[in-house]
Amino acid sequence: MYRTHNCGELRMEHLGTEVVLSGWVQGSRDLGFMMYTDLRDRYGLTQLLFNEQITDKDLFEQARTLGREFVIRVEGTVIERQSKNPNMPTGDIEIQVSKLEILNASKVPPMLIEDEIDEGDDIRMKYRYLDLRRKPVQQNLFFRSKLAIATRAYLADQDFIEVETPVLIKSTPEGARDFVVPSRMNKGQFYALPQSPQTFKQILMVAGFDKYFQIVKCFRDEDLRADRQPEFTQIDCEMSFVTQEQVLETFEGLTRHLFKKLKNVDLPKFPRMTYDEAMSKYGSDKPDIRFGMEFVELGKEELPEGFVVFDNAELVVGICAEGQAAEYSNKDIKKLTEWMQRPQIGAKGLVYVKYNADGSVKSSVGKFYNDEVLKGWLEKFGAKPGDMLLILSGEEEKTRKQLNELRLEMGNRMGLRNPEEFKPLWVVDFPLLEWDEESERFHAMHHPFTSPKAHDVERMLNGDHETMKALRADAYDMVINGVEIGGGSIRIHDRELQSRNFDLLGFTKEEAQAQFGFLLGAFEYGAPPHGGLAFGFDRLCAVMCGQNSIRDFIAFPKNNQGRDMMIEAPSPIHDEQLEELCLKINLPEGD
Amino acid sequence: MYRTHNCGELRMEHLGTEVVLSGWVQGSRDLGFMMYTDLRDRYGLTQLLFNEQITDKDLFEQARTLGREFVIRVEGTVIERQSKNPNMPTGDIEIQVSKLEILNASKVPPMLIEDEIDEGDDIRMKYRYLDLRRKPVQQNLFFRSKLAIATRAYLADQDFIEVETPVLIKSTPEGARDFVVPSRMNKGQFYALPQSPQTFKQILMVAGFDKYFQIVKCFRDEDLRADRQPEFTQIDCEMSFVTQEQVLETFEGLTRHLFKKLKNVDLPKFPRMTYDEAMSKYGSDKPDIRFGMEFVELGKEELPEGFVVFDNAELVVGICAEGQAAEYSNKDIKKLTEWMQRPQIGAKGLVYVKYNADGSVKSSVGKFYNDEVLKGWLEKFGAKPGDMLLILSGEEEKTRKQLNELRLEMGNRMGLRNPEEFKPLWVVDFPLLEWDEESERFHAMHHPFTSPKAHDVERMLNGDHETMKALRADAYDMVINGVEIGGGSIRIHDRELQSRNFDLLGFTKEEAQAQFGFLLGAFEYGAPPHGGLAFGFDRLCAVMCGQNSIRDFIAFPKNNQGRDMMIEAPSPIHDEQLEELCLKINLPEGD
Repeated sequence: MYRTHNCGELRMEHLGTEVVLSGWVQGSRDLGFMMYTDLRDRYGLTQLLFNEQITDKDLFEQARTLGREFVIRVEGTVIERQSKNPNMPTGDIEIQVSKLEILNASKVPPMLIEDEIDEGDDIRMKYRYLDLRRKPVQQNLFFRSKLAIATRAYLADQDFIEVETPVLIKSTPEGARDFVVPSRMNKGQFYALPQSPQTFKQILMVAGFDKYFQIVKCFRDEDLRADRQPEFTQIDCEMSFVTQEQVLETFEGLTRHLFKKLKNVDLPKFPRMTYDEAMSKYGSDKPDIRFGMEFVELGKEELPEGFVVFDNAELVVGICAEGQAAEYSNKDIKKLTEWMQRPQIGAKGLVYVKYNADGSVKSSVGKFYNDEVLKGWLEKFGAKPGDMLLILSGEEEKTRKQLNELRLEMGNRMGLRNPEEFKPLWVVDFPLLEWDEESERFHAMHHPFTSPKAHDVERMLNGDHETMKALRADAYDMVINGVEIGGGSIRIHDRELQSRNFDLLGFTKEEAQAQFGFLLGAFEYGAPPHGGLAFGFDRLCAVMCGQNSIRDFIAFPKNNQGRDMMIEAPSPIHDEQLEELCLKINLPEGD
Repeated sequence: MYRTHNCGELRMEHLGTEVVLSGWVQGSRDLGFMMYTDLRDRYGLTQLLFNEQITDKDLFEQARTLGREFVIRVEGTVIERQSKNPNMPTGDIEIQVSKLEILNASKVPPMLIEDEIDEGDDIRMKYRYLDLRRKPVQQNLFFRSKLAIATRAYLADQDFIEVETPVLIKSTPEGARDFVVPSRMNKGQFYALPQSPQTFKQILMVAGFDKYFQIVKCFRDEDLRADRQPEFTQIDCEMSFVTQEQVLETFEGLTRHLFKKLKNVDLPKFPRMTYDEAMSKYGSDKPDIRFGMEFVELGKEELPEGFVVFDNAELVVGICAEGQAAEYSNKDIKKLTEWMQRPQIGAKGLVYVKYNADGSVKSSVGKFYNDEVLKGWLEKFGAKPGDMLLILSGEEEKTRKQLNELRLEMGNRMGLRNPEEFKPLWVVDFPLLEWDEESERFHAMHHPFTSPKAHDVERMLNGDHETMKALRADAYDMVINGVEIGGGSIRIHDRELQSRNFDLLGFTKEEAQAQFGFLLGAFEYGAPPHGGLAFGFDRLCAVMCGQNSIRDFIAFPKNNQGRDMMIEAPSPIHDEQLEELCLKINLPEGD
């Protein structure tokens, strides 16, 4: 037997017990005549005592050979510590070791196994088996496991059935790029990995499953950013005979339950905000409402002509940063302006108006607007002495996006984005279609299966091009702390309406039939009204733990090149494998 | 609102309640002045009553237009039925309909939505959304969902952590064939889909996760049989600091819990049987021990020379079919012999000895052996009057396999394989390596990471070729009713031993390093002793429900050509997709 107890459970009540422990050597302190060694496992740390005066010399010499991360098995007696450690659950006791067995030696690890380390990602990922020994990483993954179990228990209680949908499906090059899998048995043909189980869950509704969920891997072959992974996990759900309101209530309930169960946080009732309101107040469809600093627009009446930049702008809009007037020197504002002018954001400039504590006003556009005009602005923004306005101008959509970035940055600087505070909301009433100037066609704002609102169905079937831009969908996003946690919609369940949507999205009849014929077919045999949503599970984990990167919640993430650094994948395959698949690699010249 | 109640919940206590129901039209009986319609959903059936004398004519006419599988919403009052149906949970009541809305019409379905149908698989799979409406299919999938939830709850209670391992991994063409996924970002390189998360779960043990599990999709690109699917689901588990005995106890506990919880069946303690015993008594490493009919060998002393077939056979072995002597005419035995001679089994012949009820003996080899010899056989087999011996001979391994088939067939014919009876066992002490005559190399009997038994380690490191054949592994299979439900092993955790195993399996140092370098590396940094197992989840579902095919427990299975008949996958992809992946299709001529 390797152990009678784990390394986290021995207490004073065990004094005198003969125990067997196994684990990793965290480190040793050698005092000459005695040696203390910390033994570690998933459950905790226990101090081992090797005492030259009590144990035999050979054992003591053997103990001296132990290096960091050696795996050992010890037998011994639980004794009371002379100097207790109140910060350790096992800090009252130690083990007087009588027998030591080295189960596996360890070379000196290339990185420290400690909570805080300054290793780069490359080393951490190459030696992920060492990185995963660190407590913060383990705790993230334990949290994830618990969150999945709590999610399943809650949904099962509500009569949801978990159904596994297939991973080898069909390529539908709409939305993101598919990963494809060549078929050996069907030569020249390919499976695709699912970007989501969307059509399958709708088929399950047509099949009468009524309430479906699945915690499921999804795949997108996209260029990767810090918070994107080629494979990621969704909590995927669908319900039949429901209205949007019922979907929102169900998953607000789930979310509230998860926060209570795992974080002991009572979430407030989720406010609802329309897409239009979110865009106009925050310049974002996923506003962080932990803080205010809402957008305020300046109209013609507040902008007497003279400053040509504002005179020609489609939009002049700003935020009021409370108490920041004194914080920002001219140099600071210059730096902030440069930050806004980086290509990632692309603002042309940044106008400030300082409402100094003494009541005076100072502005970068002071020569264009007199104090009366500026005070009018301050009043419109609801500014108090000490506050500072930051104003952008330009093309409407772009300017709002830029101001959103500025608002979030100011929120960070002003300490208004507390990771321990959670402010959820539902963003609703999304547009159904988005006109893409470049490709000159409509894109689905959510996805091609989203239903227009009931009062828009007629307009969608018979309206003209401009009408299409105004259609609103029964689509909704759950946003927490500025992060889109989940989104979904009521789906189309009518064949004619679905066909019309495919038309609008630029599918020919043949393409629609080839890719989604099975769904159109299913709609002819009694498809119920249905809707649902999907949560980004990796992201939900990160947000609940107040962290930014989903990578820290994935056991074996890929890097920005889509590579697993530990196993070194992807990799070349054998010629015989290619031959069996009837494939040839055809690298462009120079590669 | 689409419903106040579902179609399975209304009872006498609801009499007089105004309700809204939605669901599918199962069928109608039109009596002229009134019409009964059964409304169906996942939860049950409720009878709707349209009464011309009470409701208005328009409603009645509208009701007449309803066809099978129409999706409707009705409002009405719960009333008491005149003639109750005690076989239906809702059989005491019906709904007096006051309003009817057709939510979606249905064409006449191409198959019946009933429990028993005689449609072929092709129609069922093409219209899977209709097939999945049938109760037996839904119940299989509901069972599966419950089994997964119970499995997770049990393992989580035992401190197992569920960790998601990656789906995009690396091709290791050992064992079965990999499905591969071309990488766009790493041109000319490929991911592979996991045949199992084997190396990742071992890495998690090296990382100190201690107890891991995952219900996870696995992939094998193999030629398909009725009980194989290209993607299938495992309950995958691994534990650190455990002996084989502890692993068996843990998963015997899980299995016992699942049978109790889902089937209310108390499983007996699982007997242990060595591989050698299983092969000699049953000719199979997955014996069905719901019935006896164990193999009995006839040796030289029972076989006086004269019958040349037996004289030259490596093995003469048979079974005793109780009470079957009178059941088999000469013609029946001829048929049975022909069944054994089919190429799938390949027996040369079949010898019988009938111990007639009157005590006389009749045998197909009566002219070679006198009654005294034959009675000696009967005694050795423990036969009673009325029994019949069935005896095969030939090369040892082949003959045992053939007799295994015969034993199972006789078990079927004699009604000894009751699907409601469950007889589990552990088969243990598997050989470590299997010599393959054809390729002239060793194969891993379980997989390349399996540990030899402790007392065989020295022999494995230093023994000769013949010694290798005799090595036994800490490997084990769980077998229920003749089906291998799961299997696993204690793993190698020592780099040297693992390298030796790769050598024996014919890997060059370079190949071993290229494919499994990360694991060999991990073993150098403190790998603990560990072991685990994996259950075939689809198969566990089928066995627990007394069914043979795993397909009936998979929502969207593939057919024998690996095709999804509903979505028509795999399919050709666009040239642009191929170009982005730097691939060319290179079909052999004639294809």
